[in-house]
Amino acid sequence: MPGVMNTLRELLIEEMQDILHAEKQLVKALPKMAKAAQSPKLKAGFEEHLEQTKGQVVRLEQAFQALGEKAKTKKCHAMEGLVMEGEELIKEEDESPVRDAGLIAGAQKVEHYEIATYGTLCTWAKLLGENEALKLLKATLDEEETTDKKLSKLAETAVNKDALG
Amino acid sequence: MPGVMNTLRELLIEEMQDILHAEKQLVKALPKMAKAAQSPKLKAGFEEHLEQTKGQVVRLEQAFQALGEKAKTKKCHAMEGLVMEGEELIKEEDESPVRDAGLIAGAQKVEHYEIATYGTLCTWAKLLGENEALKLLKATLDEEETTDKKLSKLAETAVNKDALG
Repeated sequence: MPGVMNTLRELLIEEMQDILHAEKQLVKALPKMAKAAQSPKLKAGFEEHLEQTKGQVVRLEQAFQALGEKAKTKKCHAMEGLVMEGEELIKEEDESPVRDAGLIAGAQKVEHYEIATYGTLCTWAKLLGENEALKLLKATLDEEETTDKKLSKLAETAVNKDALG
Repeated sequence: MPGVMNTLRELLIEEMQDILHAEKQLVKALPKMAKAAQSPKLKAGFEEHLEQTKGQVVRLEQAFQALGEKAKTKKCHAMEGLVMEGEELIKEEDESPVRDAGLIAGAQKVEHYEIATYGTLCTWAKLLGENEALKLLKATLDEEETTDKKLSKLAETAVNKDALG
């Protein structure tokens, strides 16, 4: 047993450890996704999101600091699964508009994992009156929602129409 | 290599196989989550969502039929990870408002996985002019979005305030 949590505050910390692990996995995965993308727009999108993700790691570390806690990580199985699916796609498919469509789909799953997690973290930080941490977590939540919308637009326009062949 | 997909249609089918596997895993996991919930409201919510999920499996099978395809499954690593995290939480924590808060967080991650996936499926079905499948997939997408909102409300009100102790 990785330790018992008795309070919402402990749950908040543990969930932050989970998403810190997830973000760090993403910092490793995004360059591979950018490399695998055929569409220059998508490639640039992944590269931009890599820089954003690095900033989110820093912001998360600041949130730990605001709570007086060490920025530890806890293995995030869900993000491992998501990254594994992306790697499978890259192996299965040659560079093509179809692979691009699949890469966007995977990236949107990742975004939604983060939206759900940061949404929960914001709710808990607010309930606990942790306003400094809340501000930091909310900034990242907003960024993730914007990225998801950008990916939807890319999926509906350029990339998927090319995938129709 | 599990097979090469050359068209968006093949990608759509493969993604439907992934979410069918995910939904079937959920049908198994939701009774455990309902059992683990302390709050009667949350327990009822999970039981209701179990019935809804069974309906979503049927609807997905109908979408396969509309496309003239067999309703096969493809292992969904991400949902496996999400279900594993839920099981860990249940093992780690005794029945309590804190565990309830964690269960809601897990359920919202599941919802967001589904929202991302059905969103993608709808985009692709629309691009392919598969209107019958689109209608079915859109109905489930709407249900998942409603469930996520209900969970957010539950998280912000009853359950998390109890978890503050």
